[in-house]
Amino acid sequence: MESRDPSKAVLSPSSVLVTGANRGLGLEFVRQLLQVPKPPQKLFATCRNPSDAQELRELAAQHSNVRILRLDVENVASIQEASVSVKEQLEGLGLNLLINNAGRAIRNTIHCESEETMHLLYQIHVVGSLKMGQAFLPLLKKAAQTGPQDSLSCNRAAIINISSNAGSLTEVEGWEYGHCLSYRCSKAALNMLTRCQALALKEEGILCTAIHPGWVQTDMGTSSAFVPHLKKEESVQGMLKIFSTLSEENSGGFYSWEGKALSW
Amino acid sequence: MESRDPSKAVLSPSSVLVTGANRGLGLEFVRQLLQVPKPPQKLFATCRNPSDAQELRELAAQHSNVRILRLDVENVASIQEASVSVKEQLEGLGLNLLINNAGRAIRNTIHCESEETMHLLYQIHVVGSLKMGQAFLPLLKKAAQTGPQDSLSCNRAAIINISSNAGSLTEVEGWEYGHCLSYRCSKAALNMLTRCQALALKEEGILCTAIHPGWVQTDMGTSSAFVPHLKKEESVQGMLKIFSTLSEENSGGFYSWEGKALSW
Repeated sequence: MESRDPSKAVLSPSSVLVTGANRGLGLEFVRQLLQVPKPPQKLFATCRNPSDAQELRELAAQHSNVRILRLDVENVASIQEASVSVKEQLEGLGLNLLINNAGRAIRNTIHCESEETMHLLYQIHVVGSLKMGQAFLPLLKKAAQTGPQDSLSCNRAAIINISSNAGSLTEVEGWEYGHCLSYRCSKAALNMLTRCQALALKEEGILCTAIHPGWVQTDMGTSSAFVPHLKKEESVQGMLKIFSTLSEENSGGFYSWEGKALSW
Repeated sequence: MESRDPSKAVLSPSSVLVTGANRGLGLEFVRQLLQVPKPPQKLFATCRNPSDAQELRELAAQHSNVRILRLDVENVASIQEASVSVKEQLEGLGLNLLINNAGRAIRNTIHCESEETMHLLYQIHVVGSLKMGQAFLPLLKKAAQTGPQDSLSCNRAAIINISSNAGSLTEVEGWEYGHCLSYRCSKAALNMLTRCQALALKEEGILCTAIHPGWVQTDMGTSSAFVPHLKKEESVQGMLKIFSTLSEENSGGFYSWEGKALSW
């Protein structure tokens, strides 16, 4: 099949939703999705405070396919409200690609990690991603039913959870830069969510994959003394290339921005 | 070393604390720890409501080394209060073995898993175990400093986190019996906590290991239509045998009640 040859794969979902799209990787996803040969007809860019999202609003002013929505993954009611708005705007069509990108890192040592921080990052990364999957499931199903029926893909219907190799139990990557327990525990749990979503949604025709974006030069990535080398442009370029090649065998898997299969 | 030969290993910590000791595996741990050749001089059996723990109270009436304490792992203040009481009762000695056993299972499908259940099980399994480790760290360190200095062991100083193979990302065991997403995500995160505790506490002389007790005939284990075959007596007998053999190489690892190394 032509679509299985990575060199020829083309990412062309008709509709995409990205959370945390006001800055960092989320904003870069929106920028680059506007540059692909066949950009989404509807590109829902969500963030907590659209009024503060200056760069995103400038993009939306130039591209009528960009729709900015208020959505706070910490707030389940706001997820529900956004899903109602997206459904209306899709006018009977489904949602092809949901990118759960919104995230946060807090760098405590294991000795002073707080109950509040543990639950906050669990809410943002795990519960938020679960609730996004539940709220947008009818639209993802609709896309899966009306898309090409022969395989799973990001062009048909997919949930991409932006995870981290810091959530790898096998490697516990980057321990030397800080314990970050709340972050690691939440990302390990997000990987479990991805595994379970893949098992539960395979029959629905929905692909579910966890992606490690690399340690990127964003506000989040550089909140420690250590400065990562990876640029957000490179990371997103790599991830979009990977998205274009994902199929059944990658559903329920965990891959880096370069396409390397990662250990749980 | 004699202690490394499993057939000759003897579990003989001077002091042990078990959470969730009012029933199920927790109560069975207390029962069997009273039967080993050299029982703990102080065996702290904690539960949420000591007044309701009839069987545990009968054991304590017969064995002066059993000390019942009120401790609710959902409530960080109660963890702190219990640690103050344990410190007083240890009269200057350390705590050798902490068994984070308290747990709960809730069987929702992934489609109806709630925010509340996700956070509840995260609190009980992950945040509770983290806070137990933090609160009892000074007493574990004291035990590590005064115990045999040549190796890590449950006789010297150890945190055992009772996990589950349902938290294995590689296997996603038991999917056919229910999604149990909140349970799986929390156990995957508990495994990450164990990995991080092992890395952070190795230099302190504290062993940290995650154990899968098997799917046991307890109130928790049999809350579905499926009835497991493993008896709590067999499970705890197996686990105590494993505890007696754990050393450096097992710290940060994940083992079944039969001693089998499990995949993350």
